[in-house]
Amino acid sequence: MSDQITIALDAMGGDDAPQIVVAGANIARRRHPDVKFLLYGDEKEIAELVSKQRGLDEFVEIRHASEKVEPDDKPSQIVRSGQETSMWKAITSVKEGDSDGVVSAGNTGALLAMAMLVLRRLEGIDRPAIASFFPTQRGETVMLDLGANIQCDARNLVEFAIMGEVFARTILGINDPTIGLLNVGEEETKGNDALKLAATLLRDLDLPGEFVGFVEGDDIPSGAVDVVVTDGFTGNVALKTAEGTARLINAFVRETFRNSFWAKIGYLFAKPSFDKLRSRSDPRRYNGAMFLGLNGVCVKSHGGTDAIGFATAIGVAIDMIKYDGTALLKTNIERLDPEILRPQSAVAN
Amino acid sequence: MSDQITIALDAMGGDDAPQIVVAGANIARRRHPDVKFLLYGDEKEIAELVSKQRGLDEFVEIRHASEKVEPDDKPSQIVRSGQETSMWKAITSVKEGDSDGVVSAGNTGALLAMAMLVLRRLEGIDRPAIASFFPTQRGETVMLDLGANIQCDARNLVEFAIMGEVFARTILGINDPTIGLLNVGEEETKGNDALKLAATLLRDLDLPGEFVGFVEGDDIPSGAVDVVVTDGFTGNVALKTAEGTARLINAFVRETFRNSFWAKIGYLFAKPSFDKLRSRSDPRRYNGAMFLGLNGVCVKSHGGTDAIGFATAIGVAIDMIKYDGTALLKTNIERLDPEILRPQSAVAN
Repeated sequence: MSDQITIALDAMGGDDAPQIVVAGANIARRRHPDVKFLLYGDEKEIAELVSKQRGLDEFVEIRHASEKVEPDDKPSQIVRSGQETSMWKAITSVKEGDSDGVVSAGNTGALLAMAMLVLRRLEGIDRPAIASFFPTQRGETVMLDLGANIQCDARNLVEFAIMGEVFARTILGINDPTIGLLNVGEEETKGNDALKLAATLLRDLDLPGEFVGFVEGDDIPSGAVDVVVTDGFTGNVALKTAEGTARLINAFVRETFRNSFWAKIGYLFAKPSFDKLRSRSDPRRYNGAMFLGLNGVCVKSHGGTDAIGFATAIGVAIDMIKYDGTALLKTNIERLDPEILRPQSAVAN
Repeated sequence: MSDQITIALDAMGGDDAPQIVVAGANIARRRHPDVKFLLYGDEKEIAELVSKQRGLDEFVEIRHASEKVEPDDKPSQIVRSGQETSMWKAITSVKEGDSDGVVSAGNTGALLAMAMLVLRRLEGIDRPAIASFFPTQRGETVMLDLGANIQCDARNLVEFAIMGEVFARTILGINDPTIGLLNVGEEETKGNDALKLAATLLRDLDLPGEFVGFVEGDDIPSGAVDVVVTDGFTGNVALKTAEGTARLINAFVRETFRNSFWAKIGYLFAKPSFDKLRSRSDPRRYNGAMFLGLNGVCVKSHGGTDAIGFATAIGVAIDMIKYDGTALLKTNIERLDPEILRPQSAVAN
């Protein structure tokens, strides 16, 4: 990898694509001057948008793709027939060495399926996982898997711990992250067999990071650990429950300020502080879910984000490349005996 | 059942027992004048506390128990050796017809194990479940199972739907509650086999309430449905994640008000409205998890609650008895063919 980083962007993915992708690229290239972009999608449409973003043109190269993945395309079908889509071509550029990583705000299932097929799993990784990070009482926490794997065995959970540790180190800059395994209690006797076995392995194996044992649902928002490891079903439910609860409480607070004349006056005084809070917990600052465990960097942006949020997702890809997360991941996974627990089928979810 | 309702209280369970139990009983008997209490525990200690609660003595009968369940007692051991505990004796009073229901703020695992052993499962119920309710954007929602069953098959989930429907009807007073099955997506293809099968059954069987299909994590706080059905692992994680996230955002808001001089001034104006919000989302108003599917009403209070919270848990038991929830549950479960899906072993979690 040269000092210059090249990111492939699926310009046609996302509710407001390609606008947010092109505008997002322009925000990102100001933040990261050593980056250039390959923009995949409708050449004419993209060229017009690029021309409106002052200074962007010398940082991008447009590569035409005649098709795009639709939000309701079935992953199983689109991997067979979608070779002309902007998503497929953007991913393929990583495989062919034209780019160092890919970012898309398109259909999650399709992106995961295509990335698995084109980039392939890293050697030693049984199941790639989706990881993301969010604000907590103590700072920021990484959680995985967020939905790639509905059912997981102990080996999968151990792999997630290794991958999440690298992600926390690379993206959040945490040295020796602490790792917790999500369960319904902290006692060793809690949970199913896969969880108990994974806990034993994480305690016994000499892996990077510090395994602290089981954590519970409320330990996620409290930031009790830097990395929360769980199966994709539980992780997906927990993340969405947390997001929904944050929206609920924020709605309660807004309503409270509108509740009475005096509360409205109070809001006028407190507004600058609340604006700061809003910006601190702005979901656009936490946009960018990483597909970990592939031969290449692939980041999924929220489909409904704007240019600022898309630029954050680009930043996740850039950090992963700049700090060589994939190489670190390879090194760490090699420390794991490939024979551990395989074949076996205790299932965590 | 006569018009007079008798509730057995495990006076020794809870962080601040027996004080909160006795004081809670006094709050509850003012709210529900037709109720009397059997207080199980240390006779002398309880008598002294009762004498301090003006007017309570004529509504209570103290029944001595020489032992109590400790918070760290193992359920498997305590069911064998705990016959002299206040918890065991309180539960037994329901079985023997001395009381109509029992409330305890003690060790959850022990309470569940003892209640299962003493009260036994309702005929037709394979797995009793823990249900609770909490505030949402649209009102209040019931969720179950919250931790009694780590792994569930389709039949279990169908039973939870039937029981949750009765709970929402009885405790929240909702006619024809809507029911959703918690999953990682709303499409029919999402989730594991047990979830898909449960969805098919809930759609096809003519059960009470309205089954709306799959719901996701963020549908819990938004109040998309009246009853959220899930396995005990996912339900436990989701509930604790929601509670923790609510605490996190509340902490952010508090911090924001302290952030600057002007924000502090703003708080003075908005304080009465925020006090109202605090009282509306006060966890003590949502205290009382019900063990559904037993021959008798058994309610678990949070261990850390105070007298007001404990009185709420007593209220849950009273509503369940007054509106004859157990009989309704029996009637509804009889409509379910006992042979459905049994034996089979597709596991939801």
